[in-house]
Amino acid sequence: MRAVDLINKKRTGLRHEPGEIASLVDGYLRNIIPDYQMSAWLMAVCWRGLDAVETAELTRALVESGQQLAFRDLAMPVVDKHSTGGVGDKTTLVLVPMLAAAGCVVAKMSGRGLGHTGGTIDKLEAIPGVNTELGISDFAAAVRTRGIAVSAQSPDLAPGDGRLYALRDVTGTVESIPLIASSVMSKKIATGARAVVLDVKVGSGAFMKTLEGARNLSRAMVDLGLAAGLAVVAVITAMDQPLGMAVGNILEVQEAVATLRGGGSSDLLELCVILGAEVMVASGAALTITEARTRLEATISSGDAHRCLRDLVASLGGSPDAIDHPETLPTAPWQTPVVAHQDGVVARIDALAIGEVAMRLGAGRATKGALIDPAVGVVLSVRAGDRVHAGQSVGVVHSRKPLGSTDRLVSEVIGAFTWSATDIVREPLVLEVIR
Amino acid sequence: MRAVDLINKKRTGLRHEPGEIASLVDGYLRNIIPDYQMSAWLMAVCWRGLDAVETAELTRALVESGQQLAFRDLAMPVVDKHSTGGVGDKTTLVLVPMLAAAGCVVAKMSGRGLGHTGGTIDKLEAIPGVNTELGISDFAAAVRTRGIAVSAQSPDLAPGDGRLYALRDVTGTVESIPLIASSVMSKKIATGARAVVLDVKVGSGAFMKTLEGARNLSRAMVDLGLAAGLAVVAVITAMDQPLGMAVGNILEVQEAVATLRGGGSSDLLELCVILGAEVMVASGAALTITEARTRLEATISSGDAHRCLRDLVASLGGSPDAIDHPETLPTAPWQTPVVAHQDGVVARIDALAIGEVAMRLGAGRATKGALIDPAVGVVLSVRAGDRVHAGQSVGVVHSRKPLGSTDRLVSEVIGAFTWSATDIVREPLVLEVIR
Repeated sequence: MRAVDLINKKRTGLRHEPGEIASLVDGYLRNIIPDYQMSAWLMAVCWRGLDAVETAELTRALVESGQQLAFRDLAMPVVDKHSTGGVGDKTTLVLVPMLAAAGCVVAKMSGRGLGHTGGTIDKLEAIPGVNTELGISDFAAAVRTRGIAVSAQSPDLAPGDGRLYALRDVTGTVESIPLIASSVMSKKIATGARAVVLDVKVGSGAFMKTLEGARNLSRAMVDLGLAAGLAVVAVITAMDQPLGMAVGNILEVQEAVATLRGGGSSDLLELCVILGAEVMVASGAALTITEARTRLEATISSGDAHRCLRDLVASLGGSPDAIDHPETLPTAPWQTPVVAHQDGVVARIDALAIGEVAMRLGAGRATKGALIDPAVGVVLSVRAGDRVHAGQSVGVVHSRKPLGSTDRLVSEVIGAFTWSATDIVREPLVLEVIR
Repeated sequence: MRAVDLINKKRTGLRHEPGEIASLVDGYLRNIIPDYQMSAWLMAVCWRGLDAVETAELTRALVESGQQLAFRDLAMPVVDKHSTGGVGDKTTLVLVPMLAAAGCVVAKMSGRGLGHTGGTIDKLEAIPGVNTELGISDFAAAVRTRGIAVSAQSPDLAPGDGRLYALRDVTGTVESIPLIASSVMSKKIATGARAVVLDVKVGSGAFMKTLEGARNLSRAMVDLGLAAGLAVVAVITAMDQPLGMAVGNILEVQEAVATLRGGGSSDLLELCVILGAEVMVASGAALTITEARTRLEATISSGDAHRCLRDLVASLGGSPDAIDHPETLPTAPWQTPVVAHQDGVVARIDALAIGEVAMRLGAGRATKGALIDPAVGVVLSVRAGDRVHAGQSVGVVHSRKPLGSTDRLVSEVIGAFTWSATDIVREPLVLEVIR
């Protein structure tokens, strides 16, 4: 069948027969089908969707476009984790060492941040000396010998996804659940873990703005995992407000270390325990959620999780000192307090607004490949539900340049706050678990 | 605004602001915006549509991509005609000389056939010696000096439409009412007539399969004409059955000449009178439909329309003999009668099936640029409503190679017939007029 016939088929809302999507993707990756036909098909997919069978075929074609890792010979369960991206989301820095300390092998490739959302790789590379570009043989060796590996996404795994994503990015075809699901899952399947926990964020600071969208994306990804023999659990979590207190790369490393030491934000630790318990049970590393939670919590009190992060950072070329004394990490030269103008209860702190301030301070990238400033960002000192008095500091902006208290960036932080006259009930962090 | 932002805007169903579509089309035609972004936008347009203002801006951008003819200085009204394409549609060959003979100036650029539908240019070029590639200066000179010009579509008028159509053709983005309407009307507007009649075909043998689709397309084209100061009337006509009796280039020329001589199919003549009367009134060449009809009918009885076609053919390099003695035009070497297998009343003769037989005989093109055989085709000898006996010939297949009476092509002609046991009421040819 000609490419134009396949495009017309999808445009008119028909299902693709088995083999059609594979031939389209293969033809594209072998430069037989041009960009302009692929982008038209992608837009038709945004319009008409793909069903579970079609999405699985797309995912398989992307997995098979490159190398595939496998750790089936390892006795210990190999686990992975993915977040759809949020503001202040330093979960990986906390969860990965907890899982390793609790007896799992962790094999995780991570992305860089874009726009108002951060990325684990940027946070790790904020630590002087760290190099996350492992390449797949060093990554696989680290999985096998250390039991913990975090690396920047390898271009050798699912390279077709990289090409397709670059085209989607410039053709307005990013926002499609089957396309997002196949993009995420092709990389996860190729990475070779036995079980993956997906942290699907929903809310103002997330890619998915509605619970229904997050549910559909979660279901699509869980089904793709099943079709590939991979245990997948999706945890839908609220991203209306930043996760934890810090937004900005070094600031988030500091908060992650504090959390691994038993301090830090209770929200962040609780989320890590929930995500970790799910993937431990899914992988067979624990029999029950309760058992998994107990083992994960013990990694904090014992200090084992903290040691695991220190070892991970050291293995990537960073100084263990950064994890033992995170206060010695480079700081931004200017700290400007953000002051409440009124008495009241904090009802909500808009994640998108805080994420955008952090990006404009230099903590994130407006465009791919832009340099980021590891030290800048925003640290909140209150959270939803807290009662605040006029004149009280509710956070600090860490900047490269001096800011006045009336600077637009400072105003935008306080503008992200919604106030209530009376006490509020905080919304739950975890909305649903989809297995 | 970046191209990707414009694509995203349309993908999410938003309206484009004034200037946005023009910048997209201009950027595309100046090779700043690549094919893959344009094709994604075109698919988003297939999905979300364009409103009247957006469609007018697209049309204007296509008109302004090339030269524009104007005949406003001529005292006589300049008219044009367009058909969305059907099977056996030789209307232009009959109508254009009738209009010229009735006192209009006719300025018409025509297309070639593709698939099961024929094109006027192929029919004219079936006459030995005819060259329809006038170029716009010869075309304009013919309009001014002879009062009648028919030419192959000039690449200098609305060249942007040609580029956009080539992209649509390979990206599954042909079937969109605003895209079709802007494509047709950009060429009509650039050609410079004062009034245009559109013959919008609906039915199995037409591009538009439903009356609702034909109505929407008609309304869009009429509105585009109004926005450009052009009087447009759309006549929606049935294309469930072939128009007239002959399908095939020379066979259709012969039928057209017979019609201009007062013979031929009454349907075909009636359609030409209806279309002609509408455009005469729209252009101001006649005050009422009744007056226009009378003048058009007189061009047949006087022989003036026949003389106009002869002069037109002669001006294009063809021999006037072909119009005086059309029976001398080259014929196909083999004629195979198509025989009814049963007694009954002809309920319907499927236009698409007959058009496809003619195409496979060589009368049409499966792919652009393919050569066609001017002599082959199908001539029916009965029409819907006729009572037929088993064994009676209902038509003749004219072929380059000998065909048996059981040949698949012959069977497909008879297979195009639907039979009724009782008399039927023929469906009307003209379904609606949209002004």
